[in-house]
Amino acid sequence: MSSFREDGAAALDWIVSYLEHVREQPVLSRVEPGEIRGALPATPPEGPEPFGAILRDLDGVLAPGLTHWQSPRFFAYFATTGSEPAILAELLAAGLNQVGILWRTSPALQELEELTLDWLAQLLGLPEGLHGHIEDTASTSTLVALAAARHAQPGHRVVLCSEHAHSSVEKAVRLLELELRKVPADDEHRLRPELVDLAGACAVVATIGTTSSGSVDPVPAIADRCEQAGVWLHVDAAYAGAAAVCPELRESFAGWERADSVVVNPHKWLGVPTDCSTLWTRRAEDLRDTFSLVPEYLRASEEVASLSEYSQVLGRRFRALKLWAVLRCYGRSGLQERIREHVRLAALFEQWVRDEPGWDVVAPRHFSLVCFRREGSDEVNERLLARVNASGEVFVSHTRLDERYVLRLAVGSFRTTEDDVRLAWDVLRREAAMP
Amino acid sequence: MSSFREDGAAALDWIVSYLEHVREQPVLSRVEPGEIRGALPATPPEGPEPFGAILRDLDGVLAPGLTHWQSPRFFAYFATTGSEPAILAELLAAGLNQVGILWRTSPALQELEELTLDWLAQLLGLPEGLHGHIEDTASTSTLVALAAARHAQPGHRVVLCSEHAHSSVEKAVRLLELELRKVPADDEHRLRPELVDLAGACAVVATIGTTSSGSVDPVPAIADRCEQAGVWLHVDAAYAGAAAVCPELRESFAGWERADSVVVNPHKWLGVPTDCSTLWTRRAEDLRDTFSLVPEYLRASEEVASLSEYSQVLGRRFRALKLWAVLRCYGRSGLQERIREHVRLAALFEQWVRDEPGWDVVAPRHFSLVCFRREGSDEVNERLLARVNASGEVFVSHTRLDERYVLRLAVGSFRTTEDDVRLAWDVLRREAAMP
Repeated sequence: MSSFREDGAAALDWIVSYLEHVREQPVLSRVEPGEIRGALPATPPEGPEPFGAILRDLDGVLAPGLTHWQSPRFFAYFATTGSEPAILAELLAAGLNQVGILWRTSPALQELEELTLDWLAQLLGLPEGLHGHIEDTASTSTLVALAAARHAQPGHRVVLCSEHAHSSVEKAVRLLELELRKVPADDEHRLRPELVDLAGACAVVATIGTTSSGSVDPVPAIADRCEQAGVWLHVDAAYAGAAAVCPELRESFAGWERADSVVVNPHKWLGVPTDCSTLWTRRAEDLRDTFSLVPEYLRASEEVASLSEYSQVLGRRFRALKLWAVLRCYGRSGLQERIREHVRLAALFEQWVRDEPGWDVVAPRHFSLVCFRREGSDEVNERLLARVNASGEVFVSHTRLDERYVLRLAVGSFRTTEDDVRLAWDVLRREAAMP
Repeated sequence: MSSFREDGAAALDWIVSYLEHVREQPVLSRVEPGEIRGALPATPPEGPEPFGAILRDLDGVLAPGLTHWQSPRFFAYFATTGSEPAILAELLAAGLNQVGILWRTSPALQELEELTLDWLAQLLGLPEGLHGHIEDTASTSTLVALAAARHAQPGHRVVLCSEHAHSSVEKAVRLLELELRKVPADDEHRLRPELVDLAGACAVVATIGTTSSGSVDPVPAIADRCEQAGVWLHVDAAYAGAAAVCPELRESFAGWERADSVVVNPHKWLGVPTDCSTLWTRRAEDLRDTFSLVPEYLRASEEVASLSEYSQVLGRRFRALKLWAVLRCYGRSGLQERIREHVRLAALFEQWVRDEPGWDVVAPRHFSLVCFRREGSDEVNERLLARVNASGEVFVSHTRLDERYVLRLAVGSFRTTEDDVRLAWDVLRREAAMP
């Protein structure tokens, strides 16, 4: 155990130092495919090695193969944060190694998961009394919701979503052998509710904060249609949901309180390291009917449903601990501050783009995501992005909107400052000016 | 960052102390349902609290709600270990917060996952050249395998397994809307291959080390049938697979090298804290055909398939790091030593039961699991188990075999000694002797 203490101190030092210096690292890894694997032995060790060897190879071999999601200069996809309290909570969770199968296999895990989901629902302004639990990612949360929707409406096999819905909807539909109908969007990339045909539908997926552009589907109008037809409404707010912690940003969330299920990913914009996706539903019994299956070796005397009865997976790890740590160590005000700052920085960046000749903002900005492009061809923008990311100074990603190649800058790291956003803009302009 | 360093040291101290004293704790939590939740505030904090408050409440509020999976006296279900190197690797993984979506979003994550799966396949004597990746639990690994089997054989909707197969098979079949046919088992709880009717079948699930009794299905005979009929063979070795690291225990694994897919859970018997389930397949292209879907915002120039193309979930965390840490810090010899010791301790316990009048071993012992009972009624055994677990000294679980209530003692913690197993036997006999 003395070596555990020493190894632990070394690991902790490593992470402290990593986070202190991550801003200076090239954000997007520059290795070639196969390079990391090729630098490691092809066969496993015969005998034990000290833990120090892991740290040495982390520096010497793996480090160049890291893309630095913890860099304050990571603006690609959705920027995330593994915050300090949550990192330490993951250490505790691994040390405790709780396995949530039945309530009795870890009452603390199950009850803390229920409590933190309730706390987070309160912070986001969701209705009281929802069932909530944690899944690994939104892919699973959406799968679970759609499986329950399929089960609740036998014979109805159609799922509708906008053409801008996340690819996980299509993946879930494929696994569930449902039929996906993509509803056209308007010129602001919002699902057009008047084109929703609910014949044969078991579910509609509406998105608050699409991945491509951050657009917000008109949830109230969609909820009206779903309620009339008795069709399950699943709201995907995986990225943007965190913003509902700020009352002044709640407008975008109108109607989500009427959803049958809602997914928000605290591992995106709430300081929780991956993985942590929160799923709420007001149709808990439909989830339980869909998933509950308790074999003999798991029967217990107490009359408490276990969280595994509401989902596909049997054993769950103690993810609630890191969510709890974030909610407590930041509090409502601390989370609001960070979300507001990110929205302010994104608005600032948006204004810089608008003010600069030769550049366009190409979609309404919602939350902390800006979609923009350099005037000119797709190829010009694609080459520009490649140069920006090759510089290593920042990492920005792209999408395609209205048949055009578009750049995306997402602010979302708790460690990002105005200087970091300014650097992104400087690098973009510098590279755009190169011949 | 200075508070991160101090908070980290405190968290590390907490875990060191926890592991030093966990043997003295009541293994099965004694709280009543609702007790933990009731002891915590019903509303989230408005402002930030120090991380120390988390540690204080972990001691003061949550601790009684823990069932101590890390206790050397945990003999229920399958005993597990969150080993020290793997705990620290989870700290590193959370600090790095890598998100494996595309290869480029973390080349180190993807290539280390591929490498460690290859290393582990070598250690277990699996064939060369398999595709391998990590899922959260065997529930997901089996789901992924059966989804690929369904996709590979259109129109074939039957899945066969023994009546002793894990409940996750039935859950996967339900989600995939397949038809499950349970094949009767022989008197040693092994699937009877002569009763396998492959008409309309897309897959057979054979188990090496069933959850109830550790029984081993006759994989070679099942593989013969599957190969002739072109039916997917999935081998569930979630618990027992780790034992294949010992050549003298490989006999039980005959035929698994012919499987289309194999699942082993390093979070069960290989020192890795939950979650870490490893899935190998020789039909990688079938998995990719089933799951691959790359939206525009994730298109990248490099020609490398990402691991998300072989599974349902898009983003994966850096689980490979903890598996790598275990394989290196124990090495082949260190893992063999621990598996051998567990098998020795289980054999010892088995012998004690056999030698004691009034007690019966009720199933052939495989690996480190002993199924036994006190002579007398089911009620006698059920009451006995309740008293043993209420003592808090050890935690043992049950199953039902051949219509009888049966006790199960599973050895599997790296920290369990002969004294711990002796204690379990003493407590069982003491409680059995009570009026």
